[in-house]
Amino acid sequence: MSVGNSHQPEYQAGTPSLLRAINERSLLEYLRSHGPTSRAQLARVVGLSKPTVSQALASLEQAQLVRAVGQSVSNKGGRIATLYEPNPEAGYVIGVDVGRGWVRAAVSDLAGHIVARRDVPNTTQSAASLVALINQLARELVVEAKLSWKQVVHTVIGTPGVFDEESKRVRFASNLPEWGRHGLLTELQETLGLSISLENDANLAALGERRFGWGNETQTFVYILIGTGVGMGIVLNGTLYRGANGAAGEIGFLPFGATQPLDLERAVEPNEGYLGMFEEATSAQGIVHMAQAQGLSEPLSAKQIFAAALQGEAKALAVIEQEGQRLALAISAIVAILDPELIVLGGGIGQRTDLLLQPLEQTLRRLLPTRPRIVATRLGNESVLLGAVATALELAHNLVFQRYFNG
Amino acid sequence: MSVGNSHQPEYQAGTPSLLRAINERSLLEYLRSHGPTSRAQLARVVGLSKPTVSQALASLEQAQLVRAVGQSVSNKGGRIATLYEPNPEAGYVIGVDVGRGWVRAAVSDLAGHIVARRDVPNTTQSAASLVALINQLARELVVEAKLSWKQVVHTVIGTPGVFDEESKRVRFASNLPEWGRHGLLTELQETLGLSISLENDANLAALGERRFGWGNETQTFVYILIGTGVGMGIVLNGTLYRGANGAAGEIGFLPFGATQPLDLERAVEPNEGYLGMFEEATSAQGIVHMAQAQGLSEPLSAKQIFAAALQGEAKALAVIEQEGQRLALAISAIVAILDPELIVLGGGIGQRTDLLLQPLEQTLRRLLPTRPRIVATRLGNESVLLGAVATALELAHNLVFQRYFNG
Repeated sequence: MSVGNSHQPEYQAGTPSLLRAINERSLLEYLRSHGPTSRAQLARVVGLSKPTVSQALASLEQAQLVRAVGQSVSNKGGRIATLYEPNPEAGYVIGVDVGRGWVRAAVSDLAGHIVARRDVPNTTQSAASLVALINQLARELVVEAKLSWKQVVHTVIGTPGVFDEESKRVRFASNLPEWGRHGLLTELQETLGLSISLENDANLAALGERRFGWGNETQTFVYILIGTGVGMGIVLNGTLYRGANGAAGEIGFLPFGATQPLDLERAVEPNEGYLGMFEEATSAQGIVHMAQAQGLSEPLSAKQIFAAALQGEAKALAVIEQEGQRLALAISAIVAILDPELIVLGGGIGQRTDLLLQPLEQTLRRLLPTRPRIVATRLGNESVLLGAVATALELAHNLVFQRYFNG
Repeated sequence: MSVGNSHQPEYQAGTPSLLRAINERSLLEYLRSHGPTSRAQLARVVGLSKPTVSQALASLEQAQLVRAVGQSVSNKGGRIATLYEPNPEAGYVIGVDVGRGWVRAAVSDLAGHIVARRDVPNTTQSAASLVALINQLARELVVEAKLSWKQVVHTVIGTPGVFDEESKRVRFASNLPEWGRHGLLTELQETLGLSISLENDANLAALGERRFGWGNETQTFVYILIGTGVGMGIVLNGTLYRGANGAAGEIGFLPFGATQPLDLERAVEPNEGYLGMFEEATSAQGIVHMAQAQGLSEPLSAKQIFAAALQGEAKALAVIEQEGQRLALAISAIVAILDPELIVLGGGIGQRTDLLLQPLEQTLRRLLPTRPRIVATRLGNESVLLGAVATALELAHNLVFQRYFNG
């Protein structure tokens, strides 16, 4: 769900201009995917005349969208040829991962190099202060990277919940106070003064994994995010599947609760603030509740419970086992419905396959006649953030070119 | 999963022949999608010269792949023009729906007109006798339609379970005795002597619905089949989604059982004959078990229980309510994961939304913060059969043309 820009091509009408745009765009795309290339080689592979390529490169170089990067010796007659590449400094993007516990942010150049990066604890209690925190963090990082604010082309913010295009609100982000209120997007845009997209965190995590992690090995996988909240991003044939209302993968609402059987007579009708049963049962808070039920008296955090389990503490291990069983119920449902090639577990809790995988797979063997492949994310805590950067980059390439071309 | 034919184009090499194939194929496709058309109009819309069109039509007409169907008065000068259409009698297909209770079969011409149709009870106790029953039924229908056996171009057989390409076996079809055995496909092909595909019944039901039912209104929907077994076909953006191993939608394995909580300690590891927990709980047999638990003493069938509920019989109504609640658990999982635009309920039990929808939606309101749209199939008991016919037709168009062109 993207706001602040339609991302539609805005080429001027009229053949020569349109042709120029198409040619220059093709050259840029080729350089982006193939790396440093000479003028003559570009002419050959893109199918343009050398003078056309020269003129286009000169124009792009003058606008600082491409740059000369070195020289090569041509194999014909040993002539020296200048090599060109897209200028990574032609624009920058910001990726932000907004969670209940942490806000993570990164600034990246157009080539995907992270030039500034920081995490801050999220102690905010209102939407206004969270917006202010995001703004402050982003601006500090831009200063740290010695950039000016207007060099930032696009920002993608990952958040729990689903952005509803009709009501222009974030739905189901119940653990971020007031985050679902009207006007949040406008507020973000106005405070940051940037082109901004909001995207579901688990979707971004899946996109991060697609570009930088397990996505190199499989085109059809799910990324299950379990941390302060839960969610799932679904990649089918290399493409993010969003569902009819953008709510695919909202597994917090799976009907597996902290108590079995679910008490359907007592359950109240869900309202906007409703925390899904599965989210309640398996997120960090759910683990703390299980620990309390086990009689672990200290006010432990999920992280501390995993640490105790790693030390062999019996009650902590019992909590992890219970968590693994609950995850197995969800995974068996996901496999029965989607039959993915691979299941990637991420988030502060999900990535702890060192402890979770054994009880999880043991339970799965009793539920499913197949053995799904389950792995931990390759991106640690960075999945959502890297997905936000990757998504912002895809949009930024368009925006930078449009700015250049339309003046 | 198709056997007996690769369905790859087999055009001969060499430009004139290939060109002829492409042209004649284009004309046929145009006639198929646009209905009766004149020679001159065909030349115009397909972009071929009139002599080329004339020659192609003559060849196709001689091979009885197209036929003259009438005449139109051209708007230029009032000349009379012959109209052509694909010959529906150029080939026939058979669709079969193999269920535990019934075997349904239909013979269709290439235009999709059903020319013979019959259901027989499935009382077989072995794979061999089921193969014999399918063969007998198919051959009787072909005779009834006054056709010869070799006019049948392709047959699609819908069955519970998943055909595994590697092991060449049908997996998870536990309520058809021996149906999972090795060599079943070869046996079917040899007994019927036909080009045959085996396809999951719920997938076919979804494809039937896509072509003849709700698929006219939505491109993203699931078809939940609940009868003697349960299953689900998933259509995303107009295309059947099969999953990484062809097992997407095998919702019989959803972890919602007849008892809650699921006894994970006692549950044995599933083997090949394992009946999924959700299938056990909600299929026809599951309804009978619920009725027994309610103290309905007669040996009732699911059908009789629905009839009693329609009469207002309290215990039967309680059974239906329980069934609705169990379905709600599965549907809430399907919505949380897939977020479909529409949920179509079918099968002998599923289509009874007159009684099921109220308890189902009442429970859903306690599980989900959204209100998914749930409807009964528009195809009654015919979904799987019509899906088999539709799928067979798509293949048959290719096969008929290949036969003609390759002699």
